[in-house]
Amino acid sequence: MSMAKRIPAFVLRLIALGATITATVVMVTSHDSATVLNITFGAKYSDSPSLKYFVVINAIASGYGLIVLFLPTKCSLWRFVLVADLVIMALLDSSISAAAAIGYVGRKGNIHAGWLPICGQVPKFCDHASGAIISGIIATIIYFALLLHSLHNVINLLSVKA
Amino acid sequence: MSMAKRIPAFVLRLIALGATITATVVMVTSHDSATVLNITFGAKYSDSPSLKYFVVINAIASGYGLIVLFLPTKCSLWRFVLVADLVIMALLDSSISAAAAIGYVGRKGNIHAGWLPICGQVPKFCDHASGAIISGIIATIIYFALLLHSLHNVINLLSVKA
Repeated sequence: MSMAKRIPAFVLRLIALGATITATVVMVTSHDSATVLNITFGAKYSDSPSLKYFVVINAIASGYGLIVLFLPTKCSLWRFVLVADLVIMALLDSSISAAAAIGYVGRKGNIHAGWLPICGQVPKFCDHASGAIISGIIATIIYFALLLHSLHNVINLLSVKA
Repeated sequence: MSMAKRIPAFVLRLIALGATITATVVMVTSHDSATVLNITFGAKYSDSPSLKYFVVINAIASGYGLIVLFLPTKCSLWRFVLVADLVIMALLDSSISAAAAIGYVGRKGNIHAGWLPICGQVPKFCDHASGAIISGIIATIIYFALLLHSLHNVINLLSVKA
């Protein structure tokens, strides 16, 4: 593939790397505390298994994104990269969905289950977490676009050679 | 592609269709009620946006799975099917992750947020929902396998023709 054709994918990967690093850092640094009835309680990402999962997956995606950026241009590993992109997209997709589901309960509560919203008490925590989730969504969309781009290239090659 | 080669994929699609239909039906029919302090309350899937999302996505995946089963063998739509499989896998992945995140809070609660577990009160609801989520996970794994199978075929074709 020509160099000119590879530049858009490189830029997309760079943006995705930035997005997953941002998601990881913003989620890890999110914390807030509130005092209710003289009891101070803190909220941080590690209080929720879903948010911990979000951080772990985004950290893995960041590591992967960094490695792929430095793969040589003419590398026979592209088949591996196609499958790895698929795995990373699926993991990111899963982590943002789990985090968003919990974030929704945090913001709106669930009256049927008796779960009260907590974002009124710890708004800084919720804003950070929301920012991290949006960053994760951007990364997931980019990996999805990269997959479509790769499939398009593979299928086009087929059409030319068929 | 020969007929013999297509049979495993057909069987996988059949199982995936069964799994998404099961996930939809089991989640929709899940309900239970409990009486606490003389107040009776019911639990059903539509109480949670995440579980509603789960039902909608599994229903869409069922419809898609049914259509693809009846596509003619020699059909030029296979490129569309590859991309559609990717979209369906991503949607299923997202829906099981969101439902599982909520299901986990239902079972274990979250002491930091003050959310109490509800599965002790409505065990039948929780068992149904868990069964539906497991069925959804099976469907997601099968779509992932189908994607790998398709990619393998495409890449092999490339290798032969290159």
